[in-house]
Amino acid sequence: MIINIEFKDGKVRFIDTNSLPNRFKIVETTDPDEIVKAIKEMKIRGAPAIGGASALCLALVALYKKYSTKEEIRKLIEEYSNKLINARPTAYNMYFAIDRIKNVLNNEENLEKIKAKIVEEALKICEEDIEANKKIAIFGEKLIEDNDVILTHCNTGALATIGIGTALGIIAKAAENKKIKVYVTETRPKLQGSRLTAWELKKLGIPYKIIPDSAVGIVMKKRMVNKVFVGADRILLDGHVINKIGTLTIALIANYYKIPFYVAAPISTIDVKNTIENVKIEERDKEEVIKIKRFYIAPKDADALNLAFDITEPELIDAIITDKGIAFRPVNVNLQKILALSHNAKL
Amino acid sequence: MIINIEFKDGKVRFIDTNSLPNRFKIVETTDPDEIVKAIKEMKIRGAPAIGGASALCLALVALYKKYSTKEEIRKLIEEYSNKLINARPTAYNMYFAIDRIKNVLNNEENLEKIKAKIVEEALKICEEDIEANKKIAIFGEKLIEDNDVILTHCNTGALATIGIGTALGIIAKAAENKKIKVYVTETRPKLQGSRLTAWELKKLGIPYKIIPDSAVGIVMKKRMVNKVFVGADRILLDGHVINKIGTLTIALIANYYKIPFYVAAPISTIDVKNTIENVKIEERDKEEVIKIKRFYIAPKDADALNLAFDITEPELIDAIITDKGIAFRPVNVNLQKILALSHNAKL
Repeated sequence: MIINIEFKDGKVRFIDTNSLPNRFKIVETTDPDEIVKAIKEMKIRGAPAIGGASALCLALVALYKKYSTKEEIRKLIEEYSNKLINARPTAYNMYFAIDRIKNVLNNEENLEKIKAKIVEEALKICEEDIEANKKIAIFGEKLIEDNDVILTHCNTGALATIGIGTALGIIAKAAENKKIKVYVTETRPKLQGSRLTAWELKKLGIPYKIIPDSAVGIVMKKRMVNKVFVGADRILLDGHVINKIGTLTIALIANYYKIPFYVAAPISTIDVKNTIENVKIEERDKEEVIKIKRFYIAPKDADALNLAFDITEPELIDAIITDKGIAFRPVNVNLQKILALSHNAKL
Repeated sequence: MIINIEFKDGKVRFIDTNSLPNRFKIVETTDPDEIVKAIKEMKIRGAPAIGGASALCLALVALYKKYSTKEEIRKLIEEYSNKLINARPTAYNMYFAIDRIKNVLNNEENLEKIKAKIVEEALKICEEDIEANKKIAIFGEKLIEDNDVILTHCNTGALATIGIGTALGIIAKAAENKKIKVYVTETRPKLQGSRLTAWELKKLGIPYKIIPDSAVGIVMKKRMVNKVFVGADRILLDGHVINKIGTLTIALIANYYKIPFYVAAPISTIDVKNTIENVKIEERDKEEVIKIKRFYIAPKDADALNLAFDITEPELIDAIITDKGIAFRPVNVNLQKILALSHNAKL
C-alpha cells in the first residue's frame, strides 16, 4: 500500500509527487515551512492530502516553534495558517483542517495540553481521511459494474489523500472483484494523470491507457468509456464542484454523450460557508504551461493562462459520492440532505 | 513573411517545424524519401503543407529518380504515393495532390514532357494553396469584429500551409485592421499550439495567451473568448470535419456556451469520395504521449492512446470558410452548393 503522508517519530514523512514517475523520493521533516513549500510546489497535492498536510504542518508549529504564552502560539498558528492558504488557496480540506486546529486553541488554556491536543487533532484529521476514503470506496463501488471502462482525470488516489484515494480509491476497490479498464487524461500542465495516476494504476494492476486531455471528445463519441469518476478540491452547498482544470470540459462532453459523471470527495471537501462568487480560483505561474522540465515548449517569453481549477455546474453532475453517502441528481438538494443526516448523527 | 515550403534551384526547402520554437532550422533536399520522412515525423505538418509537400515529393521523384519508360515512372510515382499515404493517412490535401500528379501521367506520353509537367503541376498545387489561403482570409475576416477574442487550436498558419495559413491566416488578416486577442490551446501531444502558433502570433505582433487543452471549458464558461477558428485535415461532403485531436472537444463546448465555431480550409481539403465509415484516423506512437523531449512523463512502460485526429459532427459547426466562399449552417447543404458553383465556374 502507498503511504503518501504520515507522522512518525515526531516527523512528517511524505512522498515528493513531483519526482514521480522517474524517481520515488520520500521527504522527512520537522520544519513547518518545508510543508508549506511542498504544498506550494505541489510536492504534496490533492485536496485531502493538502488538508492532512496542513494539519500536520500546524502540529509541527506546535511541537517545534518557540512560544511561552497562548497568545504566542495563537499568533504562530495564525501565521502558518495564512502561509498555507497563500500556498494553495482553493482546496477546501485545508480550511477545514485549519479551522479544526484553531478550535483546539479556543478550547484549551494549558500550553502543554494545547501542544498535545493540536498534534492529536492533526493525527485525527489524517485518520479520518483514511476512514473517509474507505467509506467513499464502499459507496462508490456500487456504481461500477463488471466490464466498465472508466475515465478519470488528474490524480485522486493514495498520492492525493492520506488514505487509498477518492475517485481512484473507488476504482481500486471496484477492481478487486470486477473487470474494469481505465482511461486517464494526462492532466496538463502538471501531468498528474500520466505521472501519478498511471503509476498508481500500474501498482494496482489495473489496465489503463493515458490520453491527452484533448482526446476526451473522441473517446466519448466512440463510447470507449461508459463512466467518469473525478475528485474535487472544493464542493459548494449548491453543488458546484471546483476541481482540477479540465474537469468542466470532461463534464460537458460526458453530458453531451449521456455518459454518467461522478464526483467523489469526503465531507471535509464541502464548503458550507462560501458561494461561487467568493471562491478564489488559484492562478499559477505561466512557466508550468510553457516549460516542461527544463525545455521550453513555447517561445521563452510566451504568455499563458494557468488556472489551476475550473468550476463544474451541478446540472452536469450525476452524483457526488461522499463518505456519508451518495448525493444523486439533483446533487444540490441531496448533498444538503446527506450533510443534515451526517450532522444529526454527530449530535 | 514566413515561407514554410518552397521549390528553389531544383531543391525542396522547408522549415523543420519540430525544431521550433527553440531552433529555426531549414532543410534543403532533392531526396523524395527525405520529404516522406519529414511528413511522417511531422517536420512538415498541417494538411495544406502536407498536400504541397507531397506534390513536391513526387516532383523530386520525376526529377531525380532513374526511369526510361513511362511504365517505370508510373511505378515510381505509385510507390512514392503509397509511401506518402502511409506516412500520414488522414490529410486529404495529400490525396488531392497525388491525384493531380497522377493525372499528368495519364495525359502525357513523352518522358521529358512528363517530367516537366509533373514539376509544373506540383508548383501549381503550391501556388494554388498560396492563393486559396489569401481568399480564405478575405472571406473569413468578415466574421471577425473589433475586440473579438478568438480561440484557436493546433497550428493553421504559415507553418501548416504553403501560404499565410487557413484559420490563422484569417486571424492574421483580421489583425491588420482590427483589435483582436487570441487564446491558443497548447495542442498536446505535439504542442503545435504552444510551439508553432504562439511563435507565429508573436511574429505577427498579435496578443495571445497559451492555455492547456483542458482549459477550454472554463475559458468559454467565463466568456473569455467569443469565437473559435480552427482548420481541417479533411472535410467530408456531409460536413464532418476531421481535424487535430481536441477539435471535437472544443466544438462541443463552444456549442454548449453558444460560441460560434468556424472551420477554415481550402477546397482541396474536401473529400468528395469518402464517407465517415472509410476514413482512416491515424493512430500515432504512444511515445509522443508518454515522453516529452527525452523525459518520460509517465511510467516508461505506460500504455497510451495517441489518436492524431478526431471527427466533429456538422451540427456543431457554424460555418466552413473555403477559398470559394463560406458554407454557413447547415454546413453540409451549403458546402455542396459552394462546390457546385466552384465546379461550374471551372467549366
